[in-house]
Amino acid sequence: MAEGNYTVTPWEVKGKVDYDKLIIQFGTQKITDQLREEIKNVVGDMHVMLRREIFFSHRDLDLVIKDWKEGKGFFLYTGRAPSLGMHIGHMIPFLFTAWLQQKFGVNVYIEITDDEKFMRNLDYSLDQTRQWALDNILDIIAAGFDLDKTFIFQDTEYIRNMYPMAIKIAKKLTFSEVKATFGLDVSSNIGIIFYPALQIVPTMFEKRRCLIPAGIDQDPYWRLQRDIAESLGYFKAAQIHSKFLPPLNGPEGKMSSSIPESAIYLTDDPKTVEKKIMKYAFSGGQPTVELQRKFGANLEIDVPYQWLYYFFEENDEEVKRIEEEYRSGKMLTGEVKQILVQRVNEFLERHRERREKAKDLVKDFKYEGKLAKMMWEKIHE
Amino acid sequence: MAEGNYTVTPWEVKGKVDYDKLIIQFGTQKITDQLREEIKNVVGDMHVMLRREIFFSHRDLDLVIKDWKEGKGFFLYTGRAPSLGMHIGHMIPFLFTAWLQQKFGVNVYIEITDDEKFMRNLDYSLDQTRQWALDNILDIIAAGFDLDKTFIFQDTEYIRNMYPMAIKIAKKLTFSEVKATFGLDVSSNIGIIFYPALQIVPTMFEKRRCLIPAGIDQDPYWRLQRDIAESLGYFKAAQIHSKFLPPLNGPEGKMSSSIPESAIYLTDDPKTVEKKIMKYAFSGGQPTVELQRKFGANLEIDVPYQWLYYFFEENDEEVKRIEEEYRSGKMLTGEVKQILVQRVNEFLERHRERREKAKDLVKDFKYEGKLAKMMWEKIHE
Repeated sequence: MAEGNYTVTPWEVKGKVDYDKLIIQFGTQKITDQLREEIKNVVGDMHVMLRREIFFSHRDLDLVIKDWKEGKGFFLYTGRAPSLGMHIGHMIPFLFTAWLQQKFGVNVYIEITDDEKFMRNLDYSLDQTRQWALDNILDIIAAGFDLDKTFIFQDTEYIRNMYPMAIKIAKKLTFSEVKATFGLDVSSNIGIIFYPALQIVPTMFEKRRCLIPAGIDQDPYWRLQRDIAESLGYFKAAQIHSKFLPPLNGPEGKMSSSIPESAIYLTDDPKTVEKKIMKYAFSGGQPTVELQRKFGANLEIDVPYQWLYYFFEENDEEVKRIEEEYRSGKMLTGEVKQILVQRVNEFLERHRERREKAKDLVKDFKYEGKLAKMMWEKIHE
Repeated sequence: MAEGNYTVTPWEVKGKVDYDKLIIQFGTQKITDQLREEIKNVVGDMHVMLRREIFFSHRDLDLVIKDWKEGKGFFLYTGRAPSLGMHIGHMIPFLFTAWLQQKFGVNVYIEITDDEKFMRNLDYSLDQTRQWALDNILDIIAAGFDLDKTFIFQDTEYIRNMYPMAIKIAKKLTFSEVKATFGLDVSSNIGIIFYPALQIVPTMFEKRRCLIPAGIDQDPYWRLQRDIAESLGYFKAAQIHSKFLPPLNGPEGKMSSSIPESAIYLTDDPKTVEKKIMKYAFSGGQPTVELQRKFGANLEIDVPYQWLYYFFEENDEEVKRIEEEYRSGKMLTGEVKQILVQRVNEFLERHRERREKAKDLVKDFKYEGKLAKMMWEKIHE
């Protein structure tokens, strides 16, 4: 696919995305050096995904920081449509959200849309999507959230508390308005047509600004919220947008759960990780050692390098070293892949340990933690 | 409007309805003398509204009776979109449902759609429709339901228990399928598009046949249920349909809350009842006493006579006497109207007493009665 020839919608990412153009197309703001520095000054630190610009775009993030400085605070909201197994790309918003929570000490709300997943797919039963919800929640908890300031909820369980607010939101959105954004048409079922209202409710859980960390493909959903929020007495949802970690097997599009060789799953064992990366990881290196030594690798399309850069190698000097040696031809694709295998397996080992511990924490995040308890006592109107 | 020139949809009843034609148009069944006798044999009695054929049409009522005879039982379901004040026409399905409950000893579920009413009308707030719900529930309880076998619930409160079943139903109904039936289009809000699923849920509260007493204009709603019920493992909803009590001010259409002179409200005091009937009740009598004595009244279009026949005069001999004397010209319009004033005021006085007592029973019907308690512990899946 030619450069500039790409598609980004909430249900499809195709081609080599031009992120600068996307900012103009979507009408969002670039995260400027100044804004990044401001965050660093406030929290004394900068997450690798912010530093390396995997989080690169925003709406009203400047206002969120301003609110926070003025003592008004803000809150974080993210979510997930449960699936059979999560891949490492799915962890990006959760890891970054957990970092923001640590640094700002704010509440986090995580909506698990077991209803949406069920209604969007003819093949899935509600039992299945609820089982996946419970499973995915373990991975989400493993990202490291604050037990007393985080509420994880499934739509099918928390609906009573959200429904009055949901129908107030729903009353302001016509079928015409949601259909393009959510990819619906007259043959869509009436449940999935209502669902956008439930996705918007958590942006109104507090009378403060809500910040949503998510892939930039999700931005269109939140435009609907921004159109109606103030008429209901709430803030327009602020957002901080990430790029897509490229799929393992190619530099375009995004990882897909339905193409196993495109992704590393959180449950992949060390051997599988090694096999997948060595076999499928798309390389920007030259086809032979001789050519690689002479011309070096094209890092623009090299997936192992990009994964290291955007996610797995936090050390700036080490990344710099790999970049220089790989580009110059001093380093070979196989070596870079081996570094990635090691980093990914380190990450997954840590994740598995945290996931194991998460099993004892589910009931706290869902029902009994300080924030969770408060939320179950509250009807959102 | 010429004979045969009428409209019956769930949101509009216009003209002089030809009920025999309507049965053919809607594809329902006439309640035959045989079926009526069968009911009488089973319960030992026949309600005036059944005897005088205000309930005149059905779907699967024969199967309901068969199930009951075979010990399989059935249950009753009705409901109401709350409004500011109910008129006497609104009481017909509730009075008849309460009678069926008394005779068959079965459970009754009454859905109060505070969500639907709010979402259908731009002018109404959710606070308003919930206030009306509480008010209307008093009138409904006054119809005389069994405290331990009746569950009255508001959608905005009971949604958690209904939602899993609602999304299973929703997944089977497309926008195209519901839009004509419910009078929706692409400018409808996404909440009211989802609502049909919530209306269908109570038909699946038990794994028995569900019987719905309602005006025949409501039939199209239940056709959707009948299309999908069996695929979800439940019965097609059975129905028993009533004619419309004609509006006070004319023999066509049905009473309307927005045209005060068309209806007697449950809160109208005796003086108001008298004034409304004497002033607005549409008469089939002759314009002068002389002409009336000579030609008699046209009972086909006489509203006071029809109200007595269909609702307020249960005594068959008395109705026969009025019919003969009024038709022959022996009785004048003023006299018939006076009889109606008396009957309506007797009914309203009894209603007011029961409504007053209902105030202490609300929490039982909604939360603490035997059936209510059981229903709050149950999630419908």
